[in-house]
Amino acid sequence: MNALLKDIRDTPLLWLLAFVPIVFVAASLKPEAQTLLFVLSVLAIVPLTVLLSHATESVAAKIGDALGGLLNATLGNLAELIIALAALRAGQYMLVKASIAGPIVTNTLFILGASFFLGGLKHHEQQFNHVSARMQASLLFLATVALLIPSAISQADDVGQAFTHKLSLGLAILLFVTYGLSMWFSLKTHSELFVSASHAEEGEEPWPIGLAVATLLGVTVLVALVSEIFVESVQKAAAAFGMTPAFVGFIVVALVGGASAMPTAFSGARKNRLDLSVSIALGSASQIALFVAPVLVFLSYFIGPAPMDLQFWPGAVVMILIATLTASLVTNSGRSAWFVGVLLLMVYLIFATTLYMLPPQSQ
Amino acid sequence: MNALLKDIRDTPLLWLLAFVPIVFVAASLKPEAQTLLFVLSVLAIVPLTVLLSHATESVAAKIGDALGGLLNATLGNLAELIIALAALRAGQYMLVKASIAGPIVTNTLFILGASFFLGGLKHHEQQFNHVSARMQASLLFLATVALLIPSAISQADDVGQAFTHKLSLGLAILLFVTYGLSMWFSLKTHSELFVSASHAEEGEEPWPIGLAVATLLGVTVLVALVSEIFVESVQKAAAAFGMTPAFVGFIVVALVGGASAMPTAFSGARKNRLDLSVSIALGSASQIALFVAPVLVFLSYFIGPAPMDLQFWPGAVVMILIATLTASLVTNSGRSAWFVGVLLLMVYLIFATTLYMLPPQSQ
Amino acid sequence: MNALLKDIRDTPLLWLLAFVPIVFVAASLKPEAQTLLFVLSVLAIVPLTVLLSHATESVAAKIGDALGGLLNATLGNLAELIIALAALRAGQYMLVKASIAGPIVTNTLFILGASFFLGGLKHHEQQFNHVSARMQASLLFLATVALLIPSAISQADDVGQAFTHKLSLGLAILLFVTYGLSMWFSLKTHSELFVSASHAEEGEEPWPIGLAVATLLGVTVLVALVSEIFVESVQKAAAAFGMTPAFVGFIVVALVGGASAMPTAFSGARKNRLDLSVSIALGSASQIALFVAPVLVFLSYFIGPAPMDLQFWPGAVVMILIATLTASLVTNSGRSAWFVGVLLLMVYLIFATTLYMLPPQSQ
Repeated sequence: MNALLKDIRDTPLLWLLAFVPIVFVAASLKPEAQTLLFVLSVLAIVPLTVLLSHATESVAAKIGDALGGLLNATLGNLAELIIALAALRAGQYMLVKASIAGPIVTNTLFILGASFFLGGLKHHEQQFNHVSARMQASLLFLATVALLIPSAISQADDVGQAFTHKLSLGLAILLFVTYGLSMWFSLKTHSELFVSASHAEEGEEPWPIGLAVATLLGVTVLVALVSEIFVESVQKAAAAFGMTPAFVGFIVVALVGGASAMPTAFSGARKNRLDLSVSIALGSASQIALFVAPVLVFLSYFIGPAPMDLQFWPGAVVMILIATLTASLVTNSGRSAWFVGVLLLMVYLIFATTLYMLPPQSQ
Repeated sequence: MNALLKDIRDTPLLWLLAFVPIVFVAASLKPEAQTLLFVLSVLAIVPLTVLLSHATESVAAKIGDALGGLLNATLGNLAELIIALAALRAGQYMLVKASIAGPIVTNTLFILGASFFLGGLKHHEQQFNHVSARMQASLLFLATVALLIPSAISQADDVGQAFTHKLSLGLAILLFVTYGLSMWFSLKTHSELFVSASHAEEGEEPWPIGLAVATLLGVTVLVALVSEIFVESVQKAAAAFGMTPAFVGFIVVALVGGASAMPTAFSGARKNRLDLSVSIALGSASQIALFVAPVLVFLSYFIGPAPMDLQFWPGAVVMILIATLTASLVTNSGRSAWFVGVLLLMVYLIFATTLYMLPPQSQ
Repeated sequence: MNALLKDIRDTPLLWLLAFVPIVFVAASLKPEAQTLLFVLSVLAIVPLTVLLSHATESVAAKIGDALGGLLNATLGNLAELIIALAALRAGQYMLVKASIAGPIVTNTLFILGASFFLGGLKHHEQQFNHVSARMQASLLFLATVALLIPSAISQADDVGQAFTHKLSLGLAILLFVTYGLSMWFSLKTHSELFVSASHAEEGEEPWPIGLAVATLLGVTVLVALVSEIFVESVQKAAAAFGMTPAFVGFIVVALVGGASAMPTAFSGARKNRLDLSVSIALGSASQIALFVAPVLVFLSYFIGPAPMDLQFWPGAVVMILIATLTASLVTNSGRSAWFVGVLLLMVYLIFATTLYMLPPQSQ
């Protein structure tokens, strides 16, 4: 318990945990104040995701390399998964799909771009292991292609909904099998190619296993509860702020869900350990495509009002393809400078601007 | 003749030659048993294509490097060409186009992917000459772009059929000129960049020239005759098996036509000679785009019921572009491991699944 | 003045300056002879753009590295900008947009391809600095993606014109900011990655500053005046030659505007200084996307009959994306041979053929 309190004291971001009780109190006292609830739930989710990733890493560190790596990789995007599940239960499929597409774009453009930029401000030119970066970028590209092909092909044709559902289920199975094989590859047969993000923060002691497991379970429940409030309030709050649903799903949800990965990625870049930043950004994006997406399709048959397909909005297809292609090209050389980061961030900003301005009915 | 018999005895795949007489007997006795004829014709074509490539290589080995290389490269996709010609004569343009698009996708995803996978199961990490691989991947990318641009541009616009035919003929001429120049490049000025697939099987004696030429001519006639039966039976058989025409054209025909290249590509990968596998896969795909496609357009003016254009089904355009782009990215690093093969195969499987499920009317 | 006369005597291309007075005389005597005026104005613009780039380089050489580099980079596409402005004033937005899209395609396919081809005819294999080439190709890819994303997204949806205008203005601001940062990057913090095109022609003495500034101003006025005649005559002349407006905008205008860069790029390739050729081709294309395009949007609010958006014709989007992707893939290896040039030129030729044949109403 001391370890947990020490962590909270030392990490300013965790002070936001104060908003967790506040959001529950507010939700019961003023359930109609959607905009307030939205802001409070965002402020509460961010520290919870940080706690979640600390707890996951501590458990992973205790139970050994291979199994721990699997746990770490699987729960690395737990926050995104829980938020998407809340949206799935509420039947908001547009938001669910945006919470698949958004993190892929956010990881490959924003987190990677900001890492290159922040690292580049401190170091004239940064090098990273281009062999493993290329391998990971290839995996990411193929993973997203696998995710998007049905949308691309179906857009070209006028196909029925029954076909789309059957195809989506089939593809979800293929993606999930690929995920299993990718775990075998990255943890077992070729682990030397992948930088372990869990051992990143040196000098940080892992929590005792009991505390870690308890935190993991407790925080998961808290994230789930806050996510309910978040998903309920997000659409009305978005309208109040003048944001389109596409902007909220793609940008806001993705930034909130990805907040916990940012400190490690950015501080890695500042310490000239770009391998770590690239690994986090590309690995997380691959995982969304290969693990989170198929799991959501499977679960939609049980907890959603209707099965969900993997048919994406055409604009999302374009953005994801360009984001992953960009990541492939940019990581290809194994070198980076601040302006490469600027350009990635600029593409992200252009996506965000377009989504922000897009007339709501067209999404 | 002894050489031919020895080859047949030593190559189990050639035992399938027994199906060649069987398919002719079946076609005259039971012309209405389309499904049976389809299966028999597939079983007969596969060993014939193997024989065809043995004969081509033997002739090529006898007549010297440059001319032999030209012959080898030109007749390397003879089986695909003959099948497509049978479809052309029957006026089945959808099948003709699928037999252009299908082998490009099959070579770059299935043959390359299976080579990486099979090689990776035996070797932890495989390296190949990335200079020549990049050069070949660039050629392939540009060749397929050249093939696809008219489809991409025409899809964006509503253009007439007269325009499409005129443009297709013009482009076929450009593609054919490019093919001639690529032969000059790969056989004459820069032959050191290309691994000669014909000298691959060491210890295998080339046949005497007389036998080789006789086999080449005889087998070509046999392939043509069996292809007629294959093309006639394929649509009805496909329906019986529950396959869509797109699946048959893209996947079945391409796998049958490419069967002869697979043993060399796969055994090359197992022997850690990935350069050979990459060369076969990418070279064959380029050749389809630059040689087979324009020749089919030219011949459609003489033997088809109407001229054929190079307008592809939108889904095919997406698949070809992604397949060649993937090949470019994946061969870029000059390294491979088993999971890269899995991912290529997975994308192929996703294409196949999508085509298999696609409602027939939408193609 | 002697320096100017000496330059004219030594550069055969500058003898075409004789057409400058001729075109003005012809325009006042025979204003209805559109085809003649078109040919004369093309012949007059080409030497003027050469003079413009000599003058710019001389001024740049005098005022020091950083400021001179900025001037050189900014005025490097002055000719394209002036021609586009003439089209903007005449309200010919199709021509303005083609004069943004055309030079990107022309630089990445024609100038780069011809450099590789001409250099490859003399040298068996050419190497260039792939670190800076990759960096520049990444910048170009991201710059054009930034330019095209709104078109790609809007095509997927049915969005209103008000949205398109607002979005285009927002993006023009983002592009312009990016341009400013790219100048800071390439001239100040990371100038070692970029080959300075201005110091390319060794042994060529820069003009005295007075002459250079006077020439710069005078020639700019002349280019502007001739461009008026060019833009006025181009559509009717195109019809007379049987060219479509798309062909004129994409191909003719881009070749005329880019003529001044070609001698340096091509002679660089012949002298085995491919770095210079790559730098000119990719740098110029980036500049069009990041500088010329947003400036034209800004100026359309002041000098055009109506504001201009950045919505491109779908075919142009496809061509630009493929051109820049091709440039990325081709420059990636840092090696080149003549056939790589042939393939780039062939893709250019295929674009040109398609545009030439395209029915006019479909653009």
